[in-house]
This record gives sequence, C-alpha cells and structure tokens, in this order.
Amino acid sequence: MSTSNIQIIPISQSKIDTVDFNNLVFGTVFTDYMFECDYKDGKWQTPVIKPYGEISMAPSARVFHYGQAVFEGMKAYKDENDDVFLFRPDENFKRINKSSARLAIPEFPENYFFDGLKQLLNLDKDWIKKGIGNSMYIRPFVIATQPAISASPANEYKFMIILSPAQAYYAGEVRVVFAEQYSRAADGGVGFAKAAGNYAAQFYPTKLAHEQGFQQIIWTDANSHEYLEEAGTMNIFFRVGDTLLTAPNNDRILDGITRKSLIQLAEDNNIKVEIRRVTVAEIKEAARKGELKEIFGSGTATVVNPIIGFSHGGESFDLPKIENSYALFFKEKLMNIQYNISEDPHGWRLKI
Amino acid sequence: MSTSNIQIIPISQSKIDTVDFNNLVFGTVFTDYMFECDYKDGKWQTPVIKPYGEISMAPSARVFHYGQAVFEGMKAYKDENDDVFLFRPDENFKRINKSSARLAIPEFPENYFFDGLKQLLNLDKDWIKKGIGNSMYIRPFVIATQPAISASPANEYKFMIILSPAQAYYAGEVRVVFAEQYSRAADGGVGFAKAAGNYAAQFYPTKLAHEQGFQQIIWTDANSHEYLEEAGTMNIFFRVGDTLLTAPNNDRILDGITRKSLIQLAEDNNIKVEIRRVTVAEIKEAARKGELKEIFGSGTATVVNPIIGFSHGGESFDLPKIENSYALFFKEKLMNIQYNISEDPHGWRLKI
Repeated sequence: MSTSNIQIIPISQSKIDTVDFNNLVFGTVFTDYMFECDYKDGKWQTPVIKPYGEISMAPSARVFHYGQAVFEGMKAYKDENDDVFLFRPDENFKRINKSSARLAIPEFPENYFFDGLKQLLNLDKDWIKKGIGNSMYIRPFVIATQPAISASPANEYKFMIILSPAQAYYAGEVRVVFAEQYSRAADGGVGFAKAAGNYAAQFYPTKLAHEQGFQQIIWTDANSHEYLEEAGTMNIFFRVGDTLLTAPNNDRILDGITRKSLIQLAEDNNIKVEIRRVTVAEIKEAARKGELKEIFGSGTATVVNPIIGFSHGGESFDLPKIENSYALFFKEKLMNIQYNISEDPHGWRLKI
Repeated sequence: MSTSNIQIIPISQSKIDTVDFNNLVFGTVFTDYMFECDYKDGKWQTPVIKPYGEISMAPSARVFHYGQAVFEGMKAYKDENDDVFLFRPDENFKRINKSSARLAIPEFPENYFFDGLKQLLNLDKDWIKKGIGNSMYIRPFVIATQPAISASPANEYKFMIILSPAQAYYAGEVRVVFAEQYSRAADGGVGFAKAAGNYAAQFYPTKLAHEQGFQQIIWTDANSHEYLEEAGTMNIFFRVGDTLLTAPNNDRILDGITRKSLIQLAEDNNIKVEIRRVTVAEIKEAARKGELKEIFGSGTATVVNPIIGFSHGGESFDLPKIENSYALFFKEKLMNIQYNISEDPHGWRLKI
C-alpha cells in the first residue's frame, strides 16, 4: 500500500483507556504513536512511526538557539460510518514546504508526508471520535537538530507528526483589540510562514491585551498601524453591510486554508467578498454608522470564531446580535463538508 | 561560597584530552559540564551542574512549535596567570531577562545566573586556554518545555548554560550587501531581543546573499529600507572622515555590549561618535566622495569585524586600505581589557 517503506515500531499497550474524551484540554493529550523522520547526510532518511514519547537532543541543537522550526495545523474528522477524512491536506503540505523554504529548511517529500499521515491515522483511528466538533488535531513540525551553535542553517533536522484528540473548541465570547504599538510581522519578514518564532513574539502583547479584557489582538501593519491584517492564530473577516472584507495575502499574513475555503464558500453562495487592504478607520466608521455587522476569525483550530466587540484608540465598539450570521452560516457549511455530511463540490475531503 | 546551593553531579572522566584545541570549529565542541535549571510550579527550581549531554523533552514542548526561547552570548578569557575573567556579565544578565520579558518568559534570578556561571567555569577551567584570541564561548539560553501545543506562554521552562571553547574568530574578508527586500525586524516586534526566531528568519536571505558573494547582510528598516540598522549577529559602525556613525538602539536593534563598549572607548580616546539614524544614501555618497573610510561590525563572537566593501542597488563599493584603522584600534583596546593586559577604567572585567 505504502510506497515509503515507513518502519513501524508497535506499542506494547494502548493508553487510550486512560483518556477522558469528554474533558480534553486542547493540545495536552497525545495518541499512542508519532511519526518521525530525520534529515542528515543531505537527505531525509527512512521515516519511522513509533510509540509517542520524549525525544532526546543535544542542548546545542539549533532549534533551541535560533528558532529554525516550522509547523502546520490540520484536523482529521470521522463520519457516522467510521470513515476518516482530512480537509485539504495538500494545502498543508504545500504550506509547510513554503514555510521551510523561507526558514532555509530542506523541503519534505510528498510521499513521506501523505503516507506518514495515513499510516499514523490508521494506527490511531480509535482515538478519533465521532460527533460534530470532535476531531483529531494533527501537528506536523520540523526542527533543526544539528548540535552546533553557529547562526546558520542546520544540516540536520527532524520532521515529526504528533496527534492530539480535540473537542469542539469554544473560545468563549471573544473581544479583540486592534494593535497600536506592538506588531507581529515586518515587510520582507517571515509573517506569511508558520515559523515558530512568529508565535512566541505575540505572547507578551497578547498577555497585556488579556489584562485589559481582550482575548485576542488583531494585528495591524507594522509601518502605520492603519491596516488590519490577521489575529496571529486566525485570519480575520469583517462584514460591512452584506459584504465581507478580508486582507489580501502578503509576506506578513498567513495564507490561511480556512480563510481561502470561506472565500470560496462565499462565492458559491453569492456573498460578496472584497479581498483588499482594510483600514482601521473604515471599520470604526462602519461601526459608528451601524453598518459593521460582524467580525470573525478563521483557522483550523477554531474553524470560524465570532467576535463580539473591538477596541481601538481608547474607543470600544460592541457588535450587534444579528440573525443570519455569516460566521455561523460558514461554520456549518464548512463542518458539513469536513464531517462528510454534505456534498464536497471542490474536492476538499481526502478519505483515509 | 555559593548562596544558591547548586547541586553538582560529577563527571566520571573528562573528555578534554580528546579535543584538538588548535583546530576548533566555532560552537561544535562542548566542555565536560553544563548548567541546568527548571522552572515549574511558578518558580525556578534548584539548579544543577551535571555532565554535558543530551536533554530529553516531549515532542509537544512549546519551544519546538512556538519558538519561545531566548539566549545570550558571552566569553571568558584567561590571562597569563591563569586567572579567568568575564567581560561585563551584568549586561548579559540584564539583557537575557529583558529578552525573556518580551517573550513572556519568567525572569531568571541573579544569584543563580552568577553562581552558576562561576561554578561552571571553575569546573571547566582547564578548557579555557591562554593566549590572545582563545576564549570560552558561553551560551546561556532559556527554552519553553511545557508539553502542550496551545499558542500561549508556557508554564515550564529550562534555563541552561553550555560552554564551547573558541579560537580567534577570523571571518575572512567580509563584503556585505545592504538589504533592499528582506528585513529582520518590525517596529513593535522583537528585534531588540535575543529571541531565537530572529535568527532563523535571517538564514534564507543570508543564503541568497552568500550566493551573490556577500558574507553578511546589513539590515535596513523594514518600512523604507533607507536606514542602516544592524547585521543580525553584529552591530554596525561607519567611519566617515574621522567620525564614527552607528544607529541608535530601538525596538528593532539589539543593544550590543561590544557596541556600547566601543562607543565608550571612542569617547575615552577622543574619537567623535554620532549615534543617530544612518541613511543608505549618505553612506553611498560618502563612499563616492572618498570620505567613507571604514565599516565594521561589533559583537561578542567576532569582537570587531572589518568590512572590505558593500553593495546596494546594483552598485558595489570597495573600502580603502587605510592606516590607523579604528577597527583595529578598538579591537586591540578591547581585547587588552578582556585579557587583563591593560587597565580596566570602567570596571568591565569580572574575575572568576
């Protein structure tokens, strides 16, 4: 079946019975197996799937010092017939290699990626629970392991995939602040990549935002802070009247897979989308006039995340409660595709 | 002697005899011991000094995914009497905690840092070789170890110090390119911190520069690419006529310890220094007029690194060979202080 000759080291006993699947904390529980593939001597070596467990590395491994690391976030879904599906995994594959290229990490072979994913999900398929909202969160990542602390690209890496069962992610009521001082990414930088360092850089400003009662920051461009970009773990959509606005991709903004799926769903459903720079000023003006109907984030973990209000320049705005929410419409449409409930006109599902 | 009750686990046998100290490759050889201190349950635990070796961590450890990691670079020097000295270690201590604060990492206690350094250097003192140019490169670093892949600050960390013996670092003839497209740091970002992710972000543009025959990039501001900032592992000085120019510190530029030491040495020696924004245009103009006499970088690893030429906008400039080079003057002055050869009027040396 596989063309990759992945070596499988079996577990002695599954730990699945120790897990309370009704009380999962996101990203803390991992399955029985993990996928691991080392890069050395100029090529990716034969991958191995083995019992999930600690990895050992020299303290001089480059990832610890220079952040040479990228990752992806994906989910697998189980339908009522116990079939397992991935959602647009080709996009994740392309993106992790795009991220890797920007971080000077060697690209990962396509067959290793897909064969690894399939075999791993098959081995751990009992960990994927049925029911809307349940899923298997999949985390592929690459880290520089070469034990040498000079500041240059490593010649040894580790590509891993780990799996964490997840329940419906409800973030609570989300109120955001538009960034005025801190920023997430520079023009000509690595903001478009899922580079590890992009995330830690947001932790402190986000902590400050939490202390002021905001759950997330919507980042603005670093130059002028006049343009709304993304939320760090989500892309952002604004509904003004019945038109959706979202920022175009550039070298600062992640090319979100949920984002591009929503844009397609909007087109499919005759909802007008403008992909263009969105200014802080126009969103505040629309809010004042009562034309701003919704703001929501999109991302793999959250799917679609409605935002109830925002703040900028000391002014706070509450979004109206509305019927016919685009956010909820998109969320249902998308999840029906992901869980094999509805048709899949664009071929986004991949059956495992 | 120590107030920190650091636990010491002895080696069974030193590996020092296996090392060829005349052929060291920077950052690849490590001493017998390493310092390790874990943060958990809301505080830094009792540190331990133990045999240098691999560390084991969950693949979900946050450093692998979100780059929550900072580091420092320091050196220890041995004088002719076998006494060992650090250079301005208080500055490294302050800076690692400044970096940590920006990355939402808990600050490290001062007594652990200094007691750890001293005890580690004492245990490994035979690894520090006499002679100008020989030194012990010291790498303190902090990594987020909490095994949970949600994108938020960890509640578990590891602070380590590892030691790597170094010889005089000669980078060869260094020709640089001024950045026109890529950038290193955003306003409001983490460029001023020694954050791990800042370094990997430079690897790909630096690789492109290498392919074009340049050893380093001098980064410009991300907004306009008109202002010269730093070189990623070095701060940068320009000598126009007999005046030194260097960019002011801001949230994009590392507050270099060698940089501030050179500024002090310049003042001590009646060399005029202007700390202000330096434009690409004025440096090119000065080069055309024959007024640009030197460019050099400053940093812990390289000390002072002369640059022989630069390129920008398709134009290349060679710097003149001059007598009375500031770069060589500063390098000798600084090393004489570091190696306990000259007086130390500012109290920069710390005897171990």
